[in-house]
Amino acid sequence: MKPIRLGMVGGGNDAFIGGVHRIAARIDGHYSLVAGALSSTPEKAKASGEALGLDPDRSYGSFEEMADKESQREDGIEAVSIVTPNHVHAPAAIAFLQKGIHVICDKPLTATMEDAEKLEKAVRNAKSLFILTHNYTGYPMVRQARAMVESGELGTLRVVQVEYPQDWLTDAVEETGAKQAEWRTDPARSGAGGSTGDIGSHAHNLACFVSGLEVEKLAADLTAFVPGRRVDDNGHVLMRFKGGAKGMLWCSQVAPGNENALKLRVYGDKGGIEWSQENPNQLWFTPHGEPTRLLTRMGAGASDAANAVSRIPGGHPEGYLEGFANIYTGAAAAIRAAQKGEALPDDFRLIPGIEAGMAGMRFINACVDSSAQDAAWVTM
Amino acid sequence: MKPIRLGMVGGGNDAFIGGVHRIAARIDGHYSLVAGALSSTPEKAKASGEALGLDPDRSYGSFEEMADKESQREDGIEAVSIVTPNHVHAPAAIAFLQKGIHVICDKPLTATMEDAEKLEKAVRNAKSLFILTHNYTGYPMVRQARAMVESGELGTLRVVQVEYPQDWLTDAVEETGAKQAEWRTDPARSGAGGSTGDIGSHAHNLACFVSGLEVEKLAADLTAFVPGRRVDDNGHVLMRFKGGAKGMLWCSQVAPGNENALKLRVYGDKGGIEWSQENPNQLWFTPHGEPTRLLTRMGAGASDAANAVSRIPGGHPEGYLEGFANIYTGAAAAIRAAQKGEALPDDFRLIPGIEAGMAGMRFINACVDSSAQDAAWVTM
Amino acid sequence: MKPIRLGMVGGGNDAFIGGVHRIAARIDGHYSLVAGALSSTPEKAKASGEALGLDPDRSYGSFEEMADKESQREDGIEAVSIVTPNHVHAPAAIAFLQKGIHVICDKPLTATMEDAEKLEKAVRNAKSLFILTHNYTGYPMVRQARAMVESGELGTLRVVQVEYPQDWLTDAVEETGAKQAEWRTDPARSGAGGSTGDIGSHAHNLACFVSGLEVEKLAADLTAFVPGRRVDDNGHVLMRFKGGAKGMLWCSQVAPGNENALKLRVYGDKGGIEWSQENPNQLWFTPHGEPTRLLTRMGAGASDAANAVSRIPGGHPEGYLEGFANIYTGAAAAIRAAQKGEALPDDFRLIPGIEAGMAGMRFINACVDSSAQDAAWVTM
Amino acid sequence: MKPIRLGMVGGGNDAFIGGVHRIAARIDGHYSLVAGALSSTPEKAKASGEALGLDPDRSYGSFEEMADKESQREDGIEAVSIVTPNHVHAPAAIAFLQKGIHVICDKPLTATMEDAEKLEKAVRNAKSLFILTHNYTGYPMVRQARAMVESGELGTLRVVQVEYPQDWLTDAVEETGAKQAEWRTDPARSGAGGSTGDIGSHAHNLACFVSGLEVEKLAADLTAFVPGRRVDDNGHVLMRFKGGAKGMLWCSQVAPGNENALKLRVYGDKGGIEWSQENPNQLWFTPHGEPTRLLTRMGAGASDAANAVSRIPGGHPEGYLEGFANIYTGAAAAIRAAQKGEALPDDFRLIPGIEAGMAGMRFINACVDSSAQDAAWVTM
Repeated sequence: MKPIRLGMVGGGNDAFIGGVHRIAARIDGHYSLVAGALSSTPEKAKASGEALGLDPDRSYGSFEEMADKESQREDGIEAVSIVTPNHVHAPAAIAFLQKGIHVICDKPLTATMEDAEKLEKAVRNAKSLFILTHNYTGYPMVRQARAMVESGELGTLRVVQVEYPQDWLTDAVEETGAKQAEWRTDPARSGAGGSTGDIGSHAHNLACFVSGLEVEKLAADLTAFVPGRRVDDNGHVLMRFKGGAKGMLWCSQVAPGNENALKLRVYGDKGGIEWSQENPNQLWFTPHGEPTRLLTRMGAGASDAANAVSRIPGGHPEGYLEGFANIYTGAAAAIRAAQKGEALPDDFRLIPGIEAGMAGMRFINACVDSSAQDAAWVTM
Repeated sequence: MKPIRLGMVGGGNDAFIGGVHRIAARIDGHYSLVAGALSSTPEKAKASGEALGLDPDRSYGSFEEMADKESQREDGIEAVSIVTPNHVHAPAAIAFLQKGIHVICDKPLTATMEDAEKLEKAVRNAKSLFILTHNYTGYPMVRQARAMVESGELGTLRVVQVEYPQDWLTDAVEETGAKQAEWRTDPARSGAGGSTGDIGSHAHNLACFVSGLEVEKLAADLTAFVPGRRVDDNGHVLMRFKGGAKGMLWCSQVAPGNENALKLRVYGDKGGIEWSQENPNQLWFTPHGEPTRLLTRMGAGASDAANAVSRIPGGHPEGYLEGFANIYTGAAAAIRAAQKGEALPDDFRLIPGIEAGMAGMRFINACVDSSAQDAAWVTM
Repeated sequence: MKPIRLGMVGGGNDAFIGGVHRIAARIDGHYSLVAGALSSTPEKAKASGEALGLDPDRSYGSFEEMADKESQREDGIEAVSIVTPNHVHAPAAIAFLQKGIHVICDKPLTATMEDAEKLEKAVRNAKSLFILTHNYTGYPMVRQARAMVESGELGTLRVVQVEYPQDWLTDAVEETGAKQAEWRTDPARSGAGGSTGDIGSHAHNLACFVSGLEVEKLAADLTAFVPGRRVDDNGHVLMRFKGGAKGMLWCSQVAPGNENALKLRVYGDKGGIEWSQENPNQLWFTPHGEPTRLLTRMGAGASDAANAVSRIPGGHPEGYLEGFANIYTGAAAAIRAAQKGEALPDDFRLIPGIEAGMAGMRFINACVDSSAQDAAWVTM
Repeated sequence: MKPIRLGMVGGGNDAFIGGVHRIAARIDGHYSLVAGALSSTPEKAKASGEALGLDPDRSYGSFEEMADKESQREDGIEAVSIVTPNHVHAPAAIAFLQKGIHVICDKPLTATMEDAEKLEKAVRNAKSLFILTHNYTGYPMVRQARAMVESGELGTLRVVQVEYPQDWLTDAVEETGAKQAEWRTDPARSGAGGSTGDIGSHAHNLACFVSGLEVEKLAADLTAFVPGRRVDDNGHVLMRFKGGAKGMLWCSQVAPGNENALKLRVYGDKGGIEWSQENPNQLWFTPHGEPTRLLTRMGAGASDAANAVSRIPGGHPEGYLEGFANIYTGAAAAIRAAQKGEALPDDFRLIPGIEAGMAGMRFINACVDSSAQDAAWVTM
């Protein structure tokens, strides 16, 4: 199969997530990066394009130009990855969707709810697909966890505990010129949620993806612990799910000793599971009243749901990039089906899109609202 | 040194915590059990006394009788352990305190705030000591954690996360004749808090002991997930500490796969620590910006605070019973000092007493109150 | 039941293992320490006796005196714990056995094979019991592991891997006045094996206890890495067991980062198990072709074999001292049966005695012999 | 930069390692697969080429044909990956080397020492490079471990413990038609060593890579535990290194519960390290007398040696494929330098080549020889 021609918006030199998207797109060989508007600074865009070996003609100074020109080429991009700061997601995505180009967009959906609603409308009206890289859903054992809940192995769910602590913003690094820290703590570029938007939204997404539940209301106590910080760097959230389950969500960027410690635990009346992102090939499962089992990717206890997105045997760890690549590969299958006018693959329902994105935005907004009201319950 | 003559109220055959107290009292050889009112059922009290080798004359049918008779003997008990269901704690403790007998009482302090206040008054007026077995404070690495916070190694505290999940009440075992489950889910004997009172109070105590902080207000969402259960079996609590730190507390008895998974994490602007009760000889410490260190009991990184309550070299695990024994041994030193009219040992400040007990009662009450108001903030 | 009157040889102030034996004897309340010959230095013996609250008349200057005098008292000791350096084990044990006093002796059996054979003969001729504290066999999950192998859950055994690394002799601490290090590196007091005798013998014992196998021959490469050290501080051993299984044993006292990291793995054609002393409440079990299970003491997967020697619920860690106490408690049951002329309890077969001791001596000797022949195979 | 044009020998449908090489080549975008002789069965070669999207003209029926034709094309392959069963490595590699095509070859070097020597000669005479994918050396924390040893952080090395247990050959799966198991247990295709050649050679390579030591002599006890198996499925090896360090190596494919549990521990007089392949982003380091540190990839304790081969921040796990890709990426840099006539990059010394391959062959041979002589010492 020929690789899908891919463009990229954002992701110039020094950007973390752009490099991740490029590797994720390459791992299974389904994409070929042929165009980019890699930076909002034209010289940087050009230099980054060169470094990536793009044809200079296809290294654009703005996403508008890229959408315009690429859509006119016969060999124009079929899909685009949007990896800019959050406030650019909506306008960029809309521009490409309107040209019938498939969009793979980094999370959270946008910086504001207004933008989110515009984008949602654009997605509804578009002929092309919209994929949101809530990448943690791509991990094989996360897929298995979801399938186990779905098939009733945990019984009726009661409690969902999710946490996502980091420590990289323990000090005021945004004041030292660190680019990543700068835009992520700037509400204009990042949105009103700080840690809530950056990582809380991942935690929320993961909890909902695995449990199959929706948050009905939440009470959030957000804090900016670092003096001068303009957005929250720690979020404490109580959640009540539709159907009666309850949960807690903790996100923090000021918890020394935590690198990227996303962890999910789900408990029902028949069993419990636990999964940690830093050791993603393992899923702990306790059928109530029996010993805990260690389920491993491609191991004896791995299910079809996990095996379908695995590449190599058990004990050979797959990591973050492979999980991310599973989103790209799932998107590729759907893009190809769409191009042929075929029904989208059944597994495409596992790939996050506009609905997950809107749920994430409602989550961030509800957290900010609740916190502004001293952690009152806010219905999502 | 001669062992301290000890009596016991409660703790007859089949009681879990009575056996624990007896072993804890024996481990370091500071006590000799010589009298008991081991059950509220006279025949059971007698049989239990026999099984433990008590002199039949000193195996009493009620704590009142024991307090009375023992206080008249020349070789009467010097201290008493109270290990009954919660609603008996206050009357029993008061009876012995009034006779000048030192009291070592299981937690939580009492079943009701009314009782707690009576007991507090009795303690204030008593000449004898009152010790509350919040045993987790006896673990060496918990002592070290507290000392590290106290000495500023973590800087200004920001976040305290504590959790205590179990799974033994996942089913309605109280309806199957399980004695432990029965009284612990009966509000008349246990108090208004279920998991909150049984284990949430431990979690709260541990968080405060290590952090040196006091909860200013909390918002709690308590749930009885098991149909028909009369007390909460899951508690989700947001906490705000005096001074600005914040935290979460989760206690649950319906989380399959968790045996007794008490875990504490404390984060400040200079570092973070993590400790888990099921692996109590380890303390994880991350000075911000440096690699995480594994501090082990009696190992290279162990401090005087930990070594003072350790018995054997690093790598030879000490467990729950030794941690519990550290409370008994600390109490013994204080009892002996008191008997000699000496100043109490400096380390006695580390032994939980009436203040920790009252704080625990306020915590349980605040949780129940807050939850009754849909998780509104309640000032403690 | 009345406690058994116990004496102790060795174990004066500062001795590590004496204190362990005393706590182990106390934990379940089956013994009362009433006499001692606590040091070979009379003044130290006296001071130690005082510190322990012994009646000065029963704090003896030598074990010979103690054996003599105590055996003449009506209330004389019924059992004695021998916790001296290795070279004293045999003469002391023989002295008490000849007086009909039950002996609980620390391992290894003796310092030399000659002594071992004399002791073996004395045990054979004695009316009293001889118990050897290979304490690691007392851990509940070790008992369970043995029972699982015995019942065939692992199938036909193929591979046994055992290791016991420590780091406390990484430097030449024996030259700095450290008493423990001094005698343990002195062949006259400790025996020809250094790490082999001190900890390799534990590893060998554990491997045989759990697997039920006997070493047929071994090839050992022993090394004294620390300049000037007179005994091995590292042992690399290949083992062939009767029946065809094979294994490796590694013991080391110069492996930085290892405190007391005894670990056993046993593999058969139907499954495998893994157990680590530093986390003794867990046993990992993999039935071949199924997910690994985490079996925990008193947890859902714990068997009668483990529960029989457990005190408290799962998740409340029992440690080294409780495992050690299980040897004392098992010995107490046997001593009481012997005193009544009853058959010894069935479980007494699980308590190490002279046979385990002789096997240990043959192991140490075979290691030393093999190593002297450049790691040639030596039949045990 | 333009990708390097790559061919592949072996790696048709269903082959495990071929897929791994292809992903590893793609991850950093340095290669483009343009030709293949993907199977020794022509139809399968063709079908596999189609599945991979190769130009049918460049999907060859034999490696000889590919070497011949590609070397005549202007756009012919610049490098070739050889991922066949071991007995084909030498003839294939020689064919391409003679055409000046760079060779990236799977390990072990060859099936026989004779072949190895021929290949060694061919490498010496070739103008093109020869890379051997001992991929575990590509893990960032393995690179850091090596750098730490090199810089003296562990002091003088004493003990090296390496093990590589698996369980996939616990049963006689080679008799059930499993292709992977078939050729790996066939001495004609795999070589005289079974587990020794397949995974023992990796363990040996890793131990030498990190420690910087060479095995001087070894004593090996190899066993085929599964009835009817023609090669060893378990190897127990004692090692003596040049300079006085000693070690043990265990490889097994019959150890239930082990997926791919390669683990290395290295101890010197100043410290120790431990690394496990299944959790490759962590390196445990204990400076003697200090607490153990957890060093993480891209974390606070990560060194330049690790960072140089890392892609994403700490806590975002990189896995097996990224480690493997580091070999490909290191090879690419060298190939490009060679093409330009420049000096090879300094880091190319970290990429395994013919020397590591010959050492591996000598290791396998010495194991087989020693075992045939009842585990006598064999000088390598």
